[in-house]
Amino acid sequence: MENWDVIIVGAGSAGLAAGIYAVRSGLKTLVLDEKLAGGNISDSPKVENYPGFTEISGRELSERMAFQCQKLGAVIHSLELVSELKLEGETKTVTTNNITYQTKAVIFATGSHYKNVDVKGEKEFRGRGVSYCSVCDGPFFKGKKVSVIGGGNSACITSLYLSDITSHVTIIHRRDTFRAEYRLVSDIASKTNINVLWNTEIEEIKGDRQVRTLALKNNVTGEKTELDVDAVFVQVGEEPNSTVAKAAGVETDDAGYIKINIKQETNISGIYAAGDVTTHPIKQVGTAVGQGITAALEAYSYIRRTYKK
Amino acid sequence: MENWDVIIVGAGSAGLAAGIYAVRSGLKTLVLDEKLAGGNISDSPKVENYPGFTEISGRELSERMAFQCQKLGAVIHSLELVSELKLEGETKTVTTNNITYQTKAVIFATGSHYKNVDVKGEKEFRGRGVSYCSVCDGPFFKGKKVSVIGGGNSACITSLYLSDITSHVTIIHRRDTFRAEYRLVSDIASKTNINVLWNTEIEEIKGDRQVRTLALKNNVTGEKTELDVDAVFVQVGEEPNSTVAKAAGVETDDAGYIKINIKQETNISGIYAAGDVTTHPIKQVGTAVGQGITAALEAYSYIRRTYKK
Repeated sequence: MENWDVIIVGAGSAGLAAGIYAVRSGLKTLVLDEKLAGGNISDSPKVENYPGFTEISGRELSERMAFQCQKLGAVIHSLELVSELKLEGETKTVTTNNITYQTKAVIFATGSHYKNVDVKGEKEFRGRGVSYCSVCDGPFFKGKKVSVIGGGNSACITSLYLSDITSHVTIIHRRDTFRAEYRLVSDIASKTNINVLWNTEIEEIKGDRQVRTLALKNNVTGEKTELDVDAVFVQVGEEPNSTVAKAAGVETDDAGYIKINIKQETNISGIYAAGDVTTHPIKQVGTAVGQGITAALEAYSYIRRTYKK
Repeated sequence: MENWDVIIVGAGSAGLAAGIYAVRSGLKTLVLDEKLAGGNISDSPKVENYPGFTEISGRELSERMAFQCQKLGAVIHSLELVSELKLEGETKTVTTNNITYQTKAVIFATGSHYKNVDVKGEKEFRGRGVSYCSVCDGPFFKGKKVSVIGGGNSACITSLYLSDITSHVTIIHRRDTFRAEYRLVSDIASKTNINVLWNTEIEEIKGDRQVRTLALKNNVTGEKTELDVDAVFVQVGEEPNSTVAKAAGVETDDAGYIKINIKQETNISGIYAAGDVTTHPIKQVGTAVGQGITAALEAYSYIRRTYKK
């Protein structure tokens, strides 16, 4: 059976940062990803907020991290899906579609995925006006007209954030009330550049090289309308990729995010989590990186103390 | 009186990351530093562990962050020393050697400074064999002979870390026992490539372009010796730059580190801290950046809720 010091599940920003630090600490380090290395940030056409790069594409940033991680000596296996883990005791096992590994520590950096609205044009215009992250992409639409789809906390936060940057925000919500904190709702009510289309569903996203128009339908009256916008921010929910971790006994909150403390420790000794899959309040590349580094160095301390006494 | 949304005290990695995110959130952002922008990382000749850069000088990395922060619209004042703060209530004041500002939120990112041993050669060879950070610089001395000065937890952790990377570690300690956790001490005892020179003080660091020799003195017998090494890691303590924050009522631990939670909140509403000045367990550029981002976005939420209701 193949033996590793640490296995990192997920090769997005958190996992690659963890890999860089684990291997520099002298640990035999394996990073697994069911897709290609890179994570969600690979989809961002332009990143302006990762400290150190005034402007870089998400793909280039993640490729640089993956290159750095491998150059330092970590092994990355792409397209290898973890199906089962046994995490109790000093030696843990990780089973994939390929093989079963033994390891001393595991770091979950499996990220999350945005829920889609599943309409025509959504996939086609992703990165060209369709976005799932206002903090990432909002500033590219300074002074422009944008829309937000959704009616929960994250849709409200996104709308407020965008209202400070863009000229106008139209919220498109399929119900007739928000499902969000009172304070957020009252903040929205006080904004003169936000309006809400209640009982409204999106049917199609249209454009040329960029998003131009949304085809809408009122689900009470049946009336169909079109709305001209420069961008549409989809905020109909996000889901952590924590199914396999949870099945192995890692504790999550009700939404499925892995519970961590400031050391990135989970409820199981020797098991850490970092990045978008965790309960950390901020989901950004820079915070994922910070968490990955912390997880790796804490895993290093754990291994040294557990195995080298 | 000049008014700002957020004032960030300290323009190292944490402060600059916070500046980037604060200004992108639409906040009027001022970053103050008593020295030049950049922080401790500016002194590292080679950084290999900040995700995104396989190799970059600390100075270039910090200059890139400062440029990015200013390009996005934050104002950085170098050589401006904060002397007093009033942090209670919605409007806080920050007084410097120059002026008194009003602000809605404050982020402390004032960092820490390593204690020196204060011997000849220490300043001269800094970055050329004299280091204060094994995780940063240890891998540059793979297979080489190194020494560690100190006898506390951090000296022991540093020695164990270096023993996995370098060929041999000599610990130079002025007392006859360690002041460190039992487990760390027993780990060191089990290592065949670590030896300890007890009751020994360093008198001078000698070399040519690089560190070559340490001049030592036994403080019991008075015997003087020389030791050939390629690097010396000074671990005689570190001190957070928290005096002004503490005087303004910000809570610290016994060592002076500002107490934070996972949102980077301090004990005072609207006051945040990030980076090496905090109680966060890891002190790395990448973790400082993550904390700075979190502090800025939490400060943004605080301001929006406090002021825009």
